[in-house]
Amino acid sequence: MHLTTTPAPPYYAVIFTSILSPQDAGYHEASDRMFELVATSPGFLGYDSVRDTDRIGITVAYFKDEASIATWRDQPEHVTTRHRGRTEWYEAFQVRVARVERAYGSPT
Amino acid sequence: MHLTTTPAPPYYAVIFTSILSPQDAGYHEASDRMFELVATSPGFLGYDSVRDTDRIGITVAYFKDEASIATWRDQPEHVTTRHRGRTEWYEAFQVRVARVERAYGSPT
Repeated sequence: MHLTTTPAPPYYAVIFTSILSPQDAGYHEASDRMFELVATSPGFLGYDSVRDTDRIGITVAYFKDEASIATWRDQPEHVTTRHRGRTEWYEAFQVRVARVERAYGSPT
Repeated sequence: MHLTTTPAPPYYAVIFTSILSPQDAGYHEASDRMFELVATSPGFLGYDSVRDTDRIGITVAYFKDEASIATWRDQPEHVTTRHRGRTEWYEAFQVRVARVERAYGSPT
């Protein structure tokens, strides 16, 4: 249980919010696999991910730059899984791409 | 149970991640009050907030611009409650301020 740490800004955040359908067969395995895979993607910096008991989830993934986001977006296994997410597992989702300009917090 | 909707970018996101201490007396009332109060803050656009059973939370609050973030930061009751959060309720926290550059998602 920890919060991810990231280098000094600027860097990018992909903010993914979703509502998970009760029909989620295969979702958790696929989600675990995506977190495993993104960790190897060039320019990936870390992520925080939480889902509550109402099935609402927020994942924020941090990347070095826009090119790193594009590399992950186009990763073939991710493309396939993302499509399954949108057609099978999520009742609703939103993606926001943002440039982190400043950051602070408690000692880590 | 819903995801917030926001206008077309650009706008700003304040990404707040935290680990809530087991000693959280007063936290939930204060949190509810802050969500009530921020809704009246000029330039506030909406938020998504999730906390899981491991006590890790992510709240992303959306604002029109940096001036709106500063107004909320300096709101007196928020200043007081934020201080309580950092000294009493949170084992760890991180704040990231980011400029949302693009957004997309399922129909809302």
